[in-house]
Amino acid sequence: MVKLNKNYNNLKKSYLFAGIARRIKEYKEANPSADIIKLSIGDVTRPLTKTVVEALEKASKEMGAAETFRGYGDEQGYAFLQEQIKNYYKRNTGVQLESSEIFVSDGAKSDVGNFTELFDTDNTVIIPDPVYPVYVDSNIMNGRHIVYIEGNEANGFLPLPDQNTKGDIIYLCSPNNPTGAVYTKDQLKLWVDFANKQGAVILFDAAYESFITDDTLPRSIFEIEGARTCAVEFCSLSKTAGFTGTRCGYTIVPEDIMINGVSLNKMWLRRQTTKFNGTAYIIQRGAEAVFTSEGYAGCKENIKYYQENAKIIASTLDKLGIWYTGGINSPYIWLKCNMDSWEFFDLLLQKAGIAGTPGSGFGKCGDGYFRLTAFNTKEKTEEAMRRFEKLFI
Amino acid sequence: MVKLNKNYNNLKKSYLFAGIARRIKEYKEANPSADIIKLSIGDVTRPLTKTVVEALEKASKEMGAAETFRGYGDEQGYAFLQEQIKNYYKRNTGVQLESSEIFVSDGAKSDVGNFTELFDTDNTVIIPDPVYPVYVDSNIMNGRHIVYIEGNEANGFLPLPDQNTKGDIIYLCSPNNPTGAVYTKDQLKLWVDFANKQGAVILFDAAYESFITDDTLPRSIFEIEGARTCAVEFCSLSKTAGFTGTRCGYTIVPEDIMINGVSLNKMWLRRQTTKFNGTAYIIQRGAEAVFTSEGYAGCKENIKYYQENAKIIASTLDKLGIWYTGGINSPYIWLKCNMDSWEFFDLLLQKAGIAGTPGSGFGKCGDGYFRLTAFNTKEKTEEAMRRFEKLFI
Repeated sequence: MVKLNKNYNNLKKSYLFAGIARRIKEYKEANPSADIIKLSIGDVTRPLTKTVVEALEKASKEMGAAETFRGYGDEQGYAFLQEQIKNYYKRNTGVQLESSEIFVSDGAKSDVGNFTELFDTDNTVIIPDPVYPVYVDSNIMNGRHIVYIEGNEANGFLPLPDQNTKGDIIYLCSPNNPTGAVYTKDQLKLWVDFANKQGAVILFDAAYESFITDDTLPRSIFEIEGARTCAVEFCSLSKTAGFTGTRCGYTIVPEDIMINGVSLNKMWLRRQTTKFNGTAYIIQRGAEAVFTSEGYAGCKENIKYYQENAKIIASTLDKLGIWYTGGINSPYIWLKCNMDSWEFFDLLLQKAGIAGTPGSGFGKCGDGYFRLTAFNTKEKTEEAMRRFEKLFI
Repeated sequence: MVKLNKNYNNLKKSYLFAGIARRIKEYKEANPSADIIKLSIGDVTRPLTKTVVEALEKASKEMGAAETFRGYGDEQGYAFLQEQIKNYYKRNTGVQLESSEIFVSDGAKSDVGNFTELFDTDNTVIIPDPVYPVYVDSNIMNGRHIVYIEGNEANGFLPLPDQNTKGDIIYLCSPNNPTGAVYTKDQLKLWVDFANKQGAVILFDAAYESFITDDTLPRSIFEIEGARTCAVEFCSLSKTAGFTGTRCGYTIVPEDIMINGVSLNKMWLRRQTTKFNGTAYIIQRGAEAVFTSEGYAGCKENIKYYQENAKIIASTLDKLGIWYTGGINSPYIWLKCNMDSWEFFDLLLQKAGIAGTPGSGFGKCGDGYFRLTAFNTKEKTEEAMRRFEKLFI
């Protein structure tokens, strides 16, 4: 008789965003005329840039002619895209990578989830609370022991290691989802030193790096000395270039991380060549176009658009005297709601027609907080904030 | 100190096809003028059909306009594609599926590898020998006990369960990779009855179903009575529509498989919503076009082209009196080489400039056998067979 993975019993019943979608749907069915503005899920609304679309069309055409058709590509991605990502890192962060350290994928969510396969079940995982639910769920699925480190108003939702911190795998997300808080270089250095000292690995989620405007803040963990021997970085084109529905991300595994003489880079290569068959050629050509100077300028315009929305939300909260983090170097605004998060969710939905994300969905420390995102249109964000102001003034 | 997944130590050093590629590359570097014809990896060479390319271009354009832009889609795929796959099953196999049973993905390799996450490590896995290496490697990575069932000349490389067969998870691949052998309905019924009796799950790989020409042979395991309570089916557009570089597949998990009251369908949904973010919208539109009547007719023409190549190879082997399976309902020809498989690999490469795949790369029972594929061009296949004939006559 086949035995199931019993760790699934320890998962919370439904994935956070699916749960929110269901709640909105039910409300809409009961109130068909309700005009709901979604400042909830972190999905983008701006279309792909012209440069990217042209690259996608060109690659599609190539696939239709025998001379330019492409079959299986390398599982870790095409050299043309690895090269562009390498240049991007150099330009954007000053970090020098080798092509063999860059693994192209269908997105950071897959890689963040799958990467933990390389580790034994018997490891302690340090996860900040609140945080993106995928870190927690994928480790619960593997039956690993999880230790939460608390984010709160006192530490600006940027927890740091102290004397009591013990663990083998550390998740960090900066700019953070959901709080929008960003670690400084000095703060990240504390984590890197901790990891190198303990022989721990940092899984660094940089999905929102392109929203950083403050040049003193690190956009990659590899800007920090010592990170090459202890950190893996996940990044995505979802927010950088509006690829949430186009699916492309990349993971940086330095050649320098050796664990008892075993290369983590080679293990990930083996995992990917065995259980993955690469990202679609067409999509990789689209991704390549993101990193050209013309392509990146177009993406930056979209990012600026969302940054303006974040400002609209932030200034409303400022006016109302509501405490929050994020909104400057991040598309997320994390506000203190002074009541149960789901209660606030229902209040906003029912009284203002605004859908947001309850902080408690991101962990225990998120209760009493609420996430709004800057990804809707300017017009809808303004309208939502007019309603918000009316409700709380 | 972080602990690695020690099961990786039990993997063979390199993935089969990567190993072959390296060997060919080394030979080519030593012999720059060598004209090597690859009848090795199962990659297609015919371009995407016009219908598919047009759909990809149209979807690319849609992504460039705010009104038609798509962000995150459901992880399990768009309804428009699930609907087409549902219709395809009805038309092609007579099997009636629910949309909720169809999970769209970036390809069967990912799904076959990831699906075993749903099962406990403590299960015995039955794997036919020889077989596609991904089944073995992904279970070694999880530390599961593997039992091999022997394919050989006597059983036509179609092993069946007997009194001594014991196991919880059974991999079947029909038409088989690498042997090209296809189970009959009666043979598959023996496996389905075995699984239902033992409480085992069959993981059925149908990636080559579109090559079946004999209408009495099953193209889906769900054509077999009782399969809905014990089988999961993986399929791919790689060979059906030349999607090896375009990446789209699908997995069928019937609602009827319940294990101790737990739905395998709901577990897979949870796995996919947690660790996957769906297949690119553009690619799903391309896949949709495969299943329209015009689109499918175009794909069938390409399949016929490869089937002609298979015939060219088969008739050469017939002429030389070499024993083989496959080649009729499959793009693979599995021949008896009467020597060590890697020795035959070197012989073919060095004396005829033909790259094939050593049978031993697919398992112990594959030694003494060799795989050729029908995926090259007609011209190159003919040229390869001229050289082959000259070598062995």
